[in-house]
Amino acid sequence: MSEGLKVVTIGGGSSYTPELIEGFINRYDELPVKELWLVDIEEGKEKLDIVGNLAKRMVEKAGLPIDVHLTLDRQTALKDADFVTTQFRVGLLDARAKDERIPLSHGVIGQETNGPGGLFKGLRTVPVILDIVKDMEALCPNAWLINFTNPAGMVTEAVLRYTDLRKVVGLCNVPIGMEMGIARLLDVDHSRVRIDFAGLNHMVYGLDIFLDGVSVKEDVIQKLSSPENSSFVKNVEGSGWEPEFLRALNALTCPYHNYYYNTDVMLEKELENYRDGKVRAQVVQKLENELFELYKDPDLSEKPQQLSERGGAYYSDAAIRLISSIYNDKKDIQPVNTINNGAIPSIPAESAVEMSCVITKEGPKPVAMGDLPVASRGLVQQIKSFERIGAEAAVTGNYDTALLAMTINPLVPSDKTGKVILDEMLEAHKQHLPNFFQPTKN
Amino acid sequence: MSEGLKVVTIGGGSSYTPELIEGFINRYDELPVKELWLVDIEEGKEKLDIVGNLAKRMVEKAGLPIDVHLTLDRQTALKDADFVTTQFRVGLLDARAKDERIPLSHGVIGQETNGPGGLFKGLRTVPVILDIVKDMEALCPNAWLINFTNPAGMVTEAVLRYTDLRKVVGLCNVPIGMEMGIARLLDVDHSRVRIDFAGLNHMVYGLDIFLDGVSVKEDVIQKLSSPENSSFVKNVEGSGWEPEFLRALNALTCPYHNYYYNTDVMLEKELENYRDGKVRAQVVQKLENELFELYKDPDLSEKPQQLSERGGAYYSDAAIRLISSIYNDKKDIQPVNTINNGAIPSIPAESAVEMSCVITKEGPKPVAMGDLPVASRGLVQQIKSFERIGAEAAVTGNYDTALLAMTINPLVPSDKTGKVILDEMLEAHKQHLPNFFQPTKN
Amino acid sequence: MSEGLKVVTIGGGSSYTPELIEGFINRYDELPVKELWLVDIEEGKEKLDIVGNLAKRMVEKAGLPIDVHLTLDRQTALKDADFVTTQFRVGLLDARAKDERIPLSHGVIGQETNGPGGLFKGLRTVPVILDIVKDMEALCPNAWLINFTNPAGMVTEAVLRYTDLRKVVGLCNVPIGMEMGIARLLDVDHSRVRIDFAGLNHMVYGLDIFLDGVSVKEDVIQKLSSPENSSFVKNVEGSGWEPEFLRALNALTCPYHNYYYNTDVMLEKELENYRDGKVRAQVVQKLENELFELYKDPDLSEKPQQLSERGGAYYSDAAIRLISSIYNDKKDIQPVNTINNGAIPSIPAESAVEMSCVITKEGPKPVAMGDLPVASRGLVQQIKSFERIGAEAAVTGNYDTALLAMTINPLVPSDKTGKVILDEMLEAHKQHLPNFFQPTKN
Amino acid sequence: MSEGLKVVTIGGGSSYTPELIEGFINRYDELPVKELWLVDIEEGKEKLDIVGNLAKRMVEKAGLPIDVHLTLDRQTALKDADFVTTQFRVGLLDARAKDERIPLSHGVIGQETNGPGGLFKGLRTVPVILDIVKDMEALCPNAWLINFTNPAGMVTEAVLRYTDLRKVVGLCNVPIGMEMGIARLLDVDHSRVRIDFAGLNHMVYGLDIFLDGVSVKEDVIQKLSSPENSSFVKNVEGSGWEPEFLRALNALTCPYHNYYYNTDVMLEKELENYRDGKVRAQVVQKLENELFELYKDPDLSEKPQQLSERGGAYYSDAAIRLISSIYNDKKDIQPVNTINNGAIPSIPAESAVEMSCVITKEGPKPVAMGDLPVASRGLVQQIKSFERIGAEAAVTGNYDTALLAMTINPLVPSDKTGKVILDEMLEAHKQHLPNFFQPTKN
Repeated sequence: MSEGLKVVTIGGGSSYTPELIEGFINRYDELPVKELWLVDIEEGKEKLDIVGNLAKRMVEKAGLPIDVHLTLDRQTALKDADFVTTQFRVGLLDARAKDERIPLSHGVIGQETNGPGGLFKGLRTVPVILDIVKDMEALCPNAWLINFTNPAGMVTEAVLRYTDLRKVVGLCNVPIGMEMGIARLLDVDHSRVRIDFAGLNHMVYGLDIFLDGVSVKEDVIQKLSSPENSSFVKNVEGSGWEPEFLRALNALTCPYHNYYYNTDVMLEKELENYRDGKVRAQVVQKLENELFELYKDPDLSEKPQQLSERGGAYYSDAAIRLISSIYNDKKDIQPVNTINNGAIPSIPAESAVEMSCVITKEGPKPVAMGDLPVASRGLVQQIKSFERIGAEAAVTGNYDTALLAMTINPLVPSDKTGKVILDEMLEAHKQHLPNFFQPTKN
Repeated sequence: MSEGLKVVTIGGGSSYTPELIEGFINRYDELPVKELWLVDIEEGKEKLDIVGNLAKRMVEKAGLPIDVHLTLDRQTALKDADFVTTQFRVGLLDARAKDERIPLSHGVIGQETNGPGGLFKGLRTVPVILDIVKDMEALCPNAWLINFTNPAGMVTEAVLRYTDLRKVVGLCNVPIGMEMGIARLLDVDHSRVRIDFAGLNHMVYGLDIFLDGVSVKEDVIQKLSSPENSSFVKNVEGSGWEPEFLRALNALTCPYHNYYYNTDVMLEKELENYRDGKVRAQVVQKLENELFELYKDPDLSEKPQQLSERGGAYYSDAAIRLISSIYNDKKDIQPVNTINNGAIPSIPAESAVEMSCVITKEGPKPVAMGDLPVASRGLVQQIKSFERIGAEAAVTGNYDTALLAMTINPLVPSDKTGKVILDEMLEAHKQHLPNFFQPTKN
Repeated sequence: MSEGLKVVTIGGGSSYTPELIEGFINRYDELPVKELWLVDIEEGKEKLDIVGNLAKRMVEKAGLPIDVHLTLDRQTALKDADFVTTQFRVGLLDARAKDERIPLSHGVIGQETNGPGGLFKGLRTVPVILDIVKDMEALCPNAWLINFTNPAGMVTEAVLRYTDLRKVVGLCNVPIGMEMGIARLLDVDHSRVRIDFAGLNHMVYGLDIFLDGVSVKEDVIQKLSSPENSSFVKNVEGSGWEPEFLRALNALTCPYHNYYYNTDVMLEKELENYRDGKVRAQVVQKLENELFELYKDPDLSEKPQQLSERGGAYYSDAAIRLISSIYNDKKDIQPVNTINNGAIPSIPAESAVEMSCVITKEGPKPVAMGDLPVASRGLVQQIKSFERIGAEAAVTGNYDTALLAMTINPLVPSDKTGKVILDEMLEAHKQHLPNFFQPTKN
Repeated sequence: MSEGLKVVTIGGGSSYTPELIEGFINRYDELPVKELWLVDIEEGKEKLDIVGNLAKRMVEKAGLPIDVHLTLDRQTALKDADFVTTQFRVGLLDARAKDERIPLSHGVIGQETNGPGGLFKGLRTVPVILDIVKDMEALCPNAWLINFTNPAGMVTEAVLRYTDLRKVVGLCNVPIGMEMGIARLLDVDHSRVRIDFAGLNHMVYGLDIFLDGVSVKEDVIQKLSSPENSSFVKNVEGSGWEPEFLRALNALTCPYHNYYYNTDVMLEKELENYRDGKVRAQVVQKLENELFELYKDPDLSEKPQQLSERGGAYYSDAAIRLISSIYNDKKDIQPVNTINNGAIPSIPAESAVEMSCVITKEGPKPVAMGDLPVASRGLVQQIKSFERIGAEAAVTGNYDTALLAMTINPLVPSDKTGKVILDEMLEAHKQHLPNFFQPTKN
């Protein structure tokens, strides 16, 4: 890495890319990126061009010697890379809309990570990730894979179980958003707050909360017992817990816990969105269309304000902060998805967890916290089982395994309903599930 | 135990008692009961008299020297007992009807063990069991406590965590029913079939199935994939699993798994019963009334045929077979609720599990099976968390803890709905929850 | 197994064989052996003939329809076998003498199981066992392998780690000898005593002791505190523990614990034997020569009394009792070497342990006991590490791995002394270590 | 801690104190100590005065506003302290000489931490530490206890098991010395090297070694295979491992591993020192006498060069670096003794381990590494058992427990020899073992 870094972003045509570019520009002093390769596939070429040209204008305006490359040739891009980030979406937002709408059409929350929607996102994504890993092993065996693509837990689990790559980190903006939220709640600077995170992606708990090194959990839980304080991340509608429940749980929840501890309320809202044609994918699609219109403007050379409404706040910050901490051996503590190694004893040592880790040049090292609180252990175990069996289904293309993953998901009410959803979704996503369907021949 | 055994049955006025008496009579040769004390409380005196007199007539007809005592004085009964069986129902079937109907009135399955109904059954039962244990420690410290009272898992957990008694076994007729069902399915004698059971009460899986020592699991799962074969226990309506789901699960389910893997179908049926005034408690109440009418007949001196329709098939068999195996050091293998001791690694060693155990004079010893299959691990962990927190709520009378137990139950859709149910049920069961309410004074 | 059993004994020319034959004769009623194949190798042909003919005479005298076959053709023998027992000794007693004498020549106890001698016995034995397993998988895939060959722990570990065979049991006469000894100590019939055994082969502890189902551990430990009571097995000289040590250990030791808790005394005795040319192998060689002289007598048709002086008391009993319990699904509790499955939590679930198991037609099922007492955990872990690394060395023939196994053995004082012993023993056993040395070609 | 820190050093009269003072002076910028209280007991008053006055001169020369207090009144000192360091030696070097010489007089290595000597150091030290903890809970409940007193593992275990204090860290200069040694071996600056440490105090392994974030373990082990490179810490004579052993062990050892993997060589050297009256305590006593002569010099106002020969290199550095990292929330990675929390799965979660930890304002958080290599697991488990039982003996004063700890120590050859040593040492240390002996009355 002596002469500046080579970073490859797969899914470079994403609407998020300007956020990432801004991050690289802002931290150029500590993170000297020399080459940034934005990679996409044929279907995404137009978006890649639009966002890639914006990226170039941003870099140019910043006056930094970062070479931005746009390419559809993944292997050329990967050659000798230092960091590979993945933020692609197999099937684009159309597929996400199906992930959300098909389950809802049967009265079931879709959820793009730990629900039936997430299962399908995993079935589409895992084979592509494993392909990328294969390329990396050949072309840049020392590079780090930083994955943002959801379902980040299932994807990290799949890489750990089905490849030899260990330089992999799954990243999510939820925990950093929780920390930011708590900092706002306490009206203090973010840097003074630290949360002991433990759990899985989108199923992570804050087991303790420290302000300047002193636990303030009791105080925070007290404050959170008033409903107006409980919403941390914009793109998941939170709602205040019953104070008695939160006190007894005695841990900080993430917004996605609403899907499990507040299922009926969430379902009702999602069904309303479904009927109005406003499920998240549809809302995001509209925002994205608007963003790409903005991105086309040849006079635009910075991240437009509207991107922050897209959701994914702190996304750039989380990404660059992780890469910089690895590169600079910062040894700060960040919550990421990595190998458990016993940090949570009731989860297999070789599985992925989302934990507070110390980030070093050797990568993230999870901090041992002892076992999860009794009340959290069941749900976490259930989602871990879902992730493992979902990853297995993605790799094997086995129908039975897929139905098992579907049925044990806590949002799915029965094997029968699960099968109906499974069959309909398999059909809907047919072209992106080569492990399940022989490629069609003309 | 040299001169014959003293057995004490708490809740002796139960309609089940004739089943138990028949068992003692049939196995008198191997299990020489000298004294059988049927104990009940003031409110149950009439039923105790009716069923107790039938018991006396049955013994007399059998010509056996068993002294049957009827009493409301528990302490006198317990003095120097060898075995204490508990089959009482705090609040009688009225309370069960509330356990089932109140949740259903909010669209939630009640379930008298691992659902909201079971939580309340636990809150009422645990304090009484702990009282009995206290009496036993003083009056018959070498006796075995054989508990049939549901929720048997939560009750066993409570005894293990909150008392020093280790001679406790929780017993359920579900696993023996599963084994009988498989024997019928294979059309062989029950004695030739053995199932490796592992899990929790009403959440137990058959991990392997042996016919004459050879695994026939694959064959059984194949056979069970046709819906007509899947119902094992009469008082829970089973229904055939999707064949692909069952094959991937690759384990035998118990009937109660329908509540979790077939939730929507079960809920619909239960709501229908609710509307018709035919929830299980109401059906049973009617049966019991009829049974007690029969029991009153002074000419009746055997277990009436109609009792078998009551549900609880094999109940007598399971009970007497356990007691006899302990007494006679039979070392046969029976599925019971006992201390885990590492038999299931992902459940705490000191918790209760329902496992295949070898039954010795020293008590049941669980057979180590390695960890549960990935797919089963989540749900089992979740119910174990529910049992532990429910037991804690029962002992402490803490409202927050009770709401936590309620909310993490997989049948309860949210903390909000959970709180509504909790509040209504607390009020409805007020008089049987002294740990939650100060005793009323007149 | 419908028309009588086929049993194959590999190492059939052993001096122990008459013991085994006697056992089969005595239990013919419950264990209908139809064919007994005694297998040996070319070098053992003479002994095989002698002992085999005695076996035939014994069977004839008993008037039983057991066909005794003598053969050097292992594969013919294995075809469709039901049980395969292994009691061979690669390199015969000469090799054992080297196992014992070479370490002693450097001031180190040899010990034929858990010491440097045992390492070499393992290096010679494991490859042969793995060969036998390969034959079994092809010729009798449903047969049980009952291994008596030491080091039984390392051998069982090797079969579990390096083959797919799961129908394997390692058997030792030490625990049954301990139980017999305790019965004598208490002056009661053996059938009334049961010990909770846990640990490893020749490193097994009695965690609790029951007389008629009631723990008498305290009483037994009290009695054992007088030195005259502490010797259980004839061929290892036990010696009384310091009473305070035994009380604090609060568990029953096996005779081999003397090598670890009484090292200096044992070493002195062994060095004396070494100087006198009377190490165990030499004593046994003399006894065996005498035995074979007796066996040759064509008028002898029963097990001669002198065999019991050979050591290995209860050997026949342990062997036949295990086979019969499997065949008859007896579900009695026996201490055997089998897969851990979590029965001892701090030992890997997939490793071999020596535990009290319930013996069924499906094989032994270890009884979960929770973790070992703190004081025992270290030594057991150390021997388990030795067994695992020794097994790995045997399979790979890797010199470094062998030195690691040697050095971490608690009897070996340093890597330097370990290396000296290793080099000398490798040379001495050269012809029986094909994995370490290319086969010599003439 | 707003107006500068209050640090209390118990055992302030130690010859090490100038090292500590130098550390505080050098890091004053980042660690603003306002008050430093040097506490000692009546018997140590003279040394306290000598070294305390040197401390004052050092501070004065540095021109820093640190108030140095000398006192025999521990409770006054502890009032409102921020950090309490403990470096006392119950019974002074005389006691250490007995710890070393008595076992050697019976042919057994004494070893002041994980041998029979260490057991007695623990028996004397643990009660005093528990007393200090009691004072801290009353007088400075938010302070950190930083313990350097050996046996640091047993002491930390005792605090974790027998008190509620969790702000405790055990510190040792061995791991930092290993890291420094590896840096020298690689001829690079220390800051570029990081070792993944795992194990127990004086029984710690380097599981991986990183140079600038890249593993160089293979290279280091290759280099260490030449004997001249293997000695890291001055006051334990290391010696080169057999290259094949080290390669197979595939981990970095600490100098104290010589006592276990090189026992015979070490014993011979120690016996020679014993005969020459030059066991470590005696050598150190001589050095200390010389040091105190130097300290008396009123013109001396800096740490004398000779102190570095005392052993304990990097001691000051390790101590101040830890305190500063806690105070400044540095989040660097340091190897310390703290609660395991699952970081090493085969050690109880609530036990003390010596691990690489990230050091935060909330204290050290151990990094999860998965289980120890198979070869290391046994010895670590054995020392952990020794530490636990030794701590129990110290707290209870139970003779049997003490003999158990003695006998299971890997350096002690038998219960008999152990008892001889125990009895002699109990007598020799009588006055410092109040839990074992009623205080003598005149």
